[in-house]
Amino acid sequence: MRFGEILTPSALVDLDKVERNTRWMSQRAHALGVRLRPHVKTHKCIEAAQLQVAGHFGGITVSTLAEAHYFAEGGFTDITWAFPLPLGRVVEALELTNQIERFAVVVDHMETLEVLEKEADKRCETVCVYLKLDCGYGRAGVQADDPTAMDLARRLSESPRINFRGILAHAGHSYDCRTPAEILRVAQEERDNAVLFAERLRHDGIAVEEVSVGSTPTMRLVEDLEGVTEIRPGNYVFFDLFQANIGACQIGEIAFSVLSTVVGRYPQRDAIVLDAGALALSKDPGVHPQNPLFGLLTHPETGQAWTEGLLGGLSQEHGKVSWKGAETMPQIGDRLRILPNHSCLSAACHPVYYVLRGMEVVDTWRPCRGW
Amino acid sequence: MRFGEILTPSALVDLDKVERNTRWMSQRAHALGVRLRPHVKTHKCIEAAQLQVAGHFGGITVSTLAEAHYFAEGGFTDITWAFPLPLGRVVEALELTNQIERFAVVVDHMETLEVLEKEADKRCETVCVYLKLDCGYGRAGVQADDPTAMDLARRLSESPRINFRGILAHAGHSYDCRTPAEILRVAQEERDNAVLFAERLRHDGIAVEEVSVGSTPTMRLVEDLEGVTEIRPGNYVFFDLFQANIGACQIGEIAFSVLSTVVGRYPQRDAIVLDAGALALSKDPGVHPQNPLFGLLTHPETGQAWTEGLLGGLSQEHGKVSWKGAETMPQIGDRLRILPNHSCLSAACHPVYYVLRGMEVVDTWRPCRGW
Repeated sequence: MRFGEILTPSALVDLDKVERNTRWMSQRAHALGVRLRPHVKTHKCIEAAQLQVAGHFGGITVSTLAEAHYFAEGGFTDITWAFPLPLGRVVEALELTNQIERFAVVVDHMETLEVLEKEADKRCETVCVYLKLDCGYGRAGVQADDPTAMDLARRLSESPRINFRGILAHAGHSYDCRTPAEILRVAQEERDNAVLFAERLRHDGIAVEEVSVGSTPTMRLVEDLEGVTEIRPGNYVFFDLFQANIGACQIGEIAFSVLSTVVGRYPQRDAIVLDAGALALSKDPGVHPQNPLFGLLTHPETGQAWTEGLLGGLSQEHGKVSWKGAETMPQIGDRLRILPNHSCLSAACHPVYYVLRGMEVVDTWRPCRGW
Repeated sequence: MRFGEILTPSALVDLDKVERNTRWMSQRAHALGVRLRPHVKTHKCIEAAQLQVAGHFGGITVSTLAEAHYFAEGGFTDITWAFPLPLGRVVEALELTNQIERFAVVVDHMETLEVLEKEADKRCETVCVYLKLDCGYGRAGVQADDPTAMDLARRLSESPRINFRGILAHAGHSYDCRTPAEILRVAQEERDNAVLFAERLRHDGIAVEEVSVGSTPTMRLVEDLEGVTEIRPGNYVFFDLFQANIGACQIGEIAFSVLSTVVGRYPQRDAIVLDAGALALSKDPGVHPQNPLFGLLTHPETGQAWTEGLLGGLSQEHGKVSWKGAETMPQIGDRLRILPNHSCLSAACHPVYYVLRGMEVVDTWRPCRGW
């Protein structure tokens, strides 16, 4: 298939950039002296995950049980499901424990641990568990200073059916940052909170093997990870406009885009309409939700950004662009490549990614979907 | 399968409500004296489309060519693709023309019409075409007072390979309304603009058979459609929180919801975490983008709304809820049913819908995806 034959809207992956991005993070992990257990939730496909783990121990992180099954079938044998274990999926998780070398789940509630212990006991299974720590993000996880955190860690470490792996934290609040300096501060907080909590547990006689942290912004900028054993960044494979806007990558590193065609051209009201709407891009508003821009419009071949065009609105299948200047306004049938705000959500809209080297389609990747 | 066995996150459809909603719109069309060509883009599945067309002539409206193929294979023989025809899909559209009784496309640019004529001529095909009119929404369509609109209509009516059907308009700006009175005003504007433009064309000797209008809000509230021949509402099958918030439906009519499980419970910071995030709900912020609420939390069985819980944040797989009052805060493992802001986008997240009568799972529907 040639580039010109790709129907729109379609998801494009720039393989040179993916290779560069994955190599960068791989070297970063080596330089920082930590194991790389990359997150695969951004792309959810085997081929990209293989590039991510190259030169490392092969472990990955997933966000859904569907991904865990998919990557297990794809040959991955060491998988962490970095999501608070839902009670309704405990049995399925235990079954997977039996199918690959090492499947780990994440817990931060005694209620969940009790159900897990009971089911594991019933099945005579041992299950790997991380204790989720809230390192300042305020989404999930125990608070380090909450006495129940210590109780939970002790119970995990003493439970006969639990192989307690250690601490898992995720600095999701790095996405609230707007400068590299802010990201660096969050990265240090993520590291310090996780390492200090692990040390407190060890001081109390609880063995903590792993201290697992990581988001793409924090792993891009942090310079010292002493005490941390593994990192779990994921978005860096593709990056996106959001990462560029907060200073975690350059525009030129963004490896995922959505190819779109101009289907409407209205110079009298400075507007064009594209065939990529909310179902092809997702509706993530980017860094300024009150004044959303749903992506950066670029030339499909040169990658040059078209700053005259602002993708300010999305309906289900229409992208609504205001375009200043009739002389550069694209024509009906012209194609644009849209760098999306949030590649994890945009990629999830597409059943297939067209993988390019330059303008040549060299592969198609079919990601996992669902839960 | 029992209700309790449905894994989360999952899409639920309340069949009683779908039947009530589709019956209401069917009767509405009869009462207004117009043909009902319902849009199927909200659900994209055969079963719901069959309920929509019951008692009418059987024609439907689709938003993508993938839907057109899917519904054609599902037995629908009269389909309008209500999207500005992209040049790259002209050949495919012509092929479909050949496969069903009547496939119509929408055009608002001379460039597109010329390509369509040329390809139709090459294949000796005749293709049904609507002229898209902008009735105040400002997305796609010709302006009634633009002289090129008349040129385009004339060319459509005279072209030997074109079966010119008439005018097609869509009052998408009804979604900017915040009261029923505002919606009614937009509905009248949609009708008047389309009817007046059709009359101008007829006055100039151009035969206009169809005057097709309609959005769910406008068709819910309009009281008189004189001069209009067909309507194309779609969202009303499911409705959603957005429609309820602008006064186009009642909360109790919303037929689509996302079933979710509590996976985190943090009374010390008034928060719970659900296993339904942006990939299960979409990231449509609702009527107040500056202060988004991503859905209404309800009891999974009674449907009672939990006003103590505000679903204010979504990450990829996490729903972040602030919950006032520890006494009603759900427990780990409890299920909630989330009424989403925008059912079209939320439904598109799911490969299957669980169809319920009360608490009984009576069917599963598998929607069409992609383009």
